[in-house]
Amino acid sequence: MADFIYGINPVKEGLVGRRRPQELFVDEGGERARIDELLDLAGEQGVPVRRRRREDLTRLVGNAHHQGAVLRIEEFKYVPFEELLADWQASAKTGLFLLVDGITDPHNLGAILRNADAAGCQGVVIPKDRNCPITNVVDKASAGAVEHLPVCQIVNLARTIQQLKEAGVWVYGLATEQAGTSLYTENLQGHLALVVGSEGQGLRQRTRQLCDGLLEIPMRGGVASLNASAATAVALFEVVRQRLTR
Amino acid sequence: MADFIYGINPVKEGLVGRRRPQELFVDEGGERARIDELLDLAGEQGVPVRRRRREDLTRLVGNAHHQGAVLRIEEFKYVPFEELLADWQASAKTGLFLLVDGITDPHNLGAILRNADAAGCQGVVIPKDRNCPITNVVDKASAGAVEHLPVCQIVNLARTIQQLKEAGVWVYGLATEQAGTSLYTENLQGHLALVVGSEGQGLRQRTRQLCDGLLEIPMRGGVASLNASAATAVALFEVVRQRLTR
Repeated sequence: MADFIYGINPVKEGLVGRRRPQELFVDEGGERARIDELLDLAGEQGVPVRRRRREDLTRLVGNAHHQGAVLRIEEFKYVPFEELLADWQASAKTGLFLLVDGITDPHNLGAILRNADAAGCQGVVIPKDRNCPITNVVDKASAGAVEHLPVCQIVNLARTIQQLKEAGVWVYGLATEQAGTSLYTENLQGHLALVVGSEGQGLRQRTRQLCDGLLEIPMRGGVASLNASAATAVALFEVVRQRLTR
Repeated sequence: MADFIYGINPVKEGLVGRRRPQELFVDEGGERARIDELLDLAGEQGVPVRRRRREDLTRLVGNAHHQGAVLRIEEFKYVPFEELLADWQASAKTGLFLLVDGITDPHNLGAILRNADAAGCQGVVIPKDRNCPITNVVDKASAGAVEHLPVCQIVNLARTIQQLKEAGVWVYGLATEQAGTSLYTENLQGHLALVVGSEGQGLRQRTRQLCDGLLEIPMRGGVASLNASAATAVALFEVVRQRLTR
């Protein structure tokens, strides 16, 4: 089995990422300089290149947002959660994990994964139920971050939270309403996993109860909420800040 | 002239926002409890309600993402920049402004406006050229934040930056590459305007030169960039944090 990823940046990341790239399809009528960059990369990696018409690329991926570049690539492989945990323990790094609970929109999920990568998360955990899996839309929305970032698909979020706690990781839920401690007063310098819920519903009651604490981002405006991806970015980069200034 | 806004949350904000709501169209086959909430609000505000079929609502707004609720509302009115400035000066609040430079995608712009509102910006400034104006897609993506948040449309960004500086506001550009001071070492407690550029190109050279400084978000991952809306959220909430802990 293979996946197709598309768009200049995702294809570029795909050519240098964890998954084996198999075949690059380009429409040379696209943005020439950037397509040339992809062709050079494909040459370096020994990836065969096929010239195609724009409409053939559109047919291949099912939409027209490919910017003239499509990469056939080894199927996305989730990392087993136990492997993520073991790799982190072997690394002696301060743990930072993101757990997703109820994100069904692929654009939201992609944006969240991009934030997780940018903030240096060791990995992201996505339950199999009630969540979007990694698709090529997610890959594109993540700007290719999923090509680097370990992603685990698990069945039982409660069990994963328990495993993290046993491994010495603090598990915090990101609260969408005024229900938690301010993000800015909590010490986030230890090993940490952040759980982000769906935009509409927030975290499920069951998930909240399993967390060591809930974090709240103080709101200042009239509408007074952030979307799930912005809230994740704000919370993860507060962790980055606290660890920088330790 | 009138605008149409749509989707449960934007319509709800529209019924209580700055613009005069004129007529509510609902499909009662939608999410019943939430539609009822809108009907109650419309009743309180004296807004006439029209029952329509789902497909008629789709025709009205040009897409199917209306969740059974469409509001005809007074046309969006930009606030003159001089008025925003005068209102802020009269308020004696610590200034926080967002200037947008080259955001052409309405979803990005909406997400950015939502962040600006959540962080308590006094207003957002959007140049007329090379930027998306406020449309109903922007309104929806902002979750209705534009119904509360003053938005100015200006012709000359350089002149606006100059006016802000003369009013005692520090103007910082958000750098997408390693070109600035770390966001976390700069003092952001004074009156401040943040300029955010387009995702692909960042700030224009001319705009960068006009800024008092450039701020950089330290990156930790493999792909190492945030999208414009996530970067804006991180930077604006660092301002919120610094002002909280002053």
